[in-house]
Amino acid sequence: MSTETDDTLRQIVDERAIERLLADYAERIDAKDPEGAAACFCEDGVGIYWQECIGPAAITERLTGILAGFHATSHHLSNIQIQLSGDTATALSYVYAFHRYAETLEPMHYWGRWVDELKRESGQWKFARREVIGVGSINPEGRDTADLNHPGHPGRLP
Amino acid sequence: MSTETDDTLRQIVDERAIERLLADYAERIDAKDPEGAAACFCEDGVGIYWQECIGPAAITERLTGILAGFHATSHHLSNIQIQLSGDTATALSYVYAFHRYAETLEPMHYWGRWVDELKRESGQWKFARREVIGVGSINPEGRDTADLNHPGHPGRLP
Amino acid sequence: MSTETDDTLRQIVDERAIERLLADYAERIDAKDPEGAAACFCEDGVGIYWQECIGPAAITERLTGILAGFHATSHHLSNIQIQLSGDTATALSYVYAFHRYAETLEPMHYWGRWVDELKRESGQWKFARREVIGVGSINPEGRDTADLNHPGHPGRLP
Repeated sequence: MSTETDDTLRQIVDERAIERLLADYAERIDAKDPEGAAACFCEDGVGIYWQECIGPAAITERLTGILAGFHATSHHLSNIQIQLSGDTATALSYVYAFHRYAETLEPMHYWGRWVDELKRESGQWKFARREVIGVGSINPEGRDTADLNHPGHPGRLP
Repeated sequence: MSTETDDTLRQIVDERAIERLLADYAERIDAKDPEGAAACFCEDGVGIYWQECIGPAAITERLTGILAGFHATSHHLSNIQIQLSGDTATALSYVYAFHRYAETLEPMHYWGRWVDELKRESGQWKFARREVIGVGSINPEGRDTADLNHPGHPGRLP
Repeated sequence: MSTETDDTLRQIVDERAIERLLADYAERIDAKDPEGAAACFCEDGVGIYWQECIGPAAITERLTGILAGFHATSHHLSNIQIQLSGDTATALSYVYAFHRYAETLEPMHYWGRWVDELKRESGQWKFARREVIGVGSINPEGRDTADLNHPGHPGRLP
């Protein structure tokens, strides 16, 4: 096999592994499993959840608090754009998330971007840093007036 | 070519073939083609559509009844997670489906999971068993109060 | 490496390049960058935006006008079905797009299909022709009564 073919195949394998990590993370979030979701991070991985959390233990604690507020969540990913660079990578992904609040069972809709830095750790791709950027949301009437305060698509021109 | 490379490429080809089957099935459903959708099943494939249907003929009949109720459907897939095992596989996929009812033209929204068992039959991946698990839905006012009775994400923790 | 393996890998590379082009185009649209989006077209590429626009300059102008109407857009792609044929290809993709109008900030939802013809130009896949087919939309109350006038899923049976 030529080196070029080898490299091409390796790149596809890496990209698919990262795509799968993103889906696995969403799946664990929607399974209300903060520990399983946090296990998708590197040992020193940083999760920005409206505050900076460092490492799986801190991320688990933070996610536990957030997920307690919801009866259901469903994070639908698409438009995954990956840039590989050896054992690191960046990814920009689209997410639409359906939610129902735990207290009222009212639906909430969220559109955003997952902005990720990834690292290969012991042969496994994991999150080195992840941040969610809001593009829009629709909340139950009267609940929240912050719907229009999202930063919007990263780098959106004026 | 090394055996390892060969295996890696074959796995990607199989996964992509299954991803395509899922998209083809959705496309045939949204084209209101029950027969085309049922052709995605094995000869003895089982479709759970709120009742168990066995084989393409029974599935065609069942789908014909269901699809008659809609002016439009649009099944958007994402987060496809496949586990291959030789000539069989399992897949968990996210679906959001937009619907308009045939009678009233009112919209209905559905979020769920496609839980699939697949089998390679005469070289083609097909559904051996498929079931749809509801996570949430939003119905026109007054139409249905079952929105909150979905089983939810498979294996969701309490 | 066998010729068959080589062909298989090349097909996957081409399909992934086209999938990426679709995501890149969506990303540039949502970044409100008409020029960047139009650069995804061939020199003589045709974009049907409720009127026929030929070539990147005409497409840029048309997209500038359309995008000016929105505070935010978010085009979520899925179910990408590609048919390769040497240096040309066709693709059918599902899109759900969240919008907020610039004037009123009200949300608008759109479900449709991207129907694309693609061409490899100087080694890069680009749009030779693209058209968006509406399947459904939900507009703010009183804004528009055209929600139900979409052509619907291509080839939908009666």
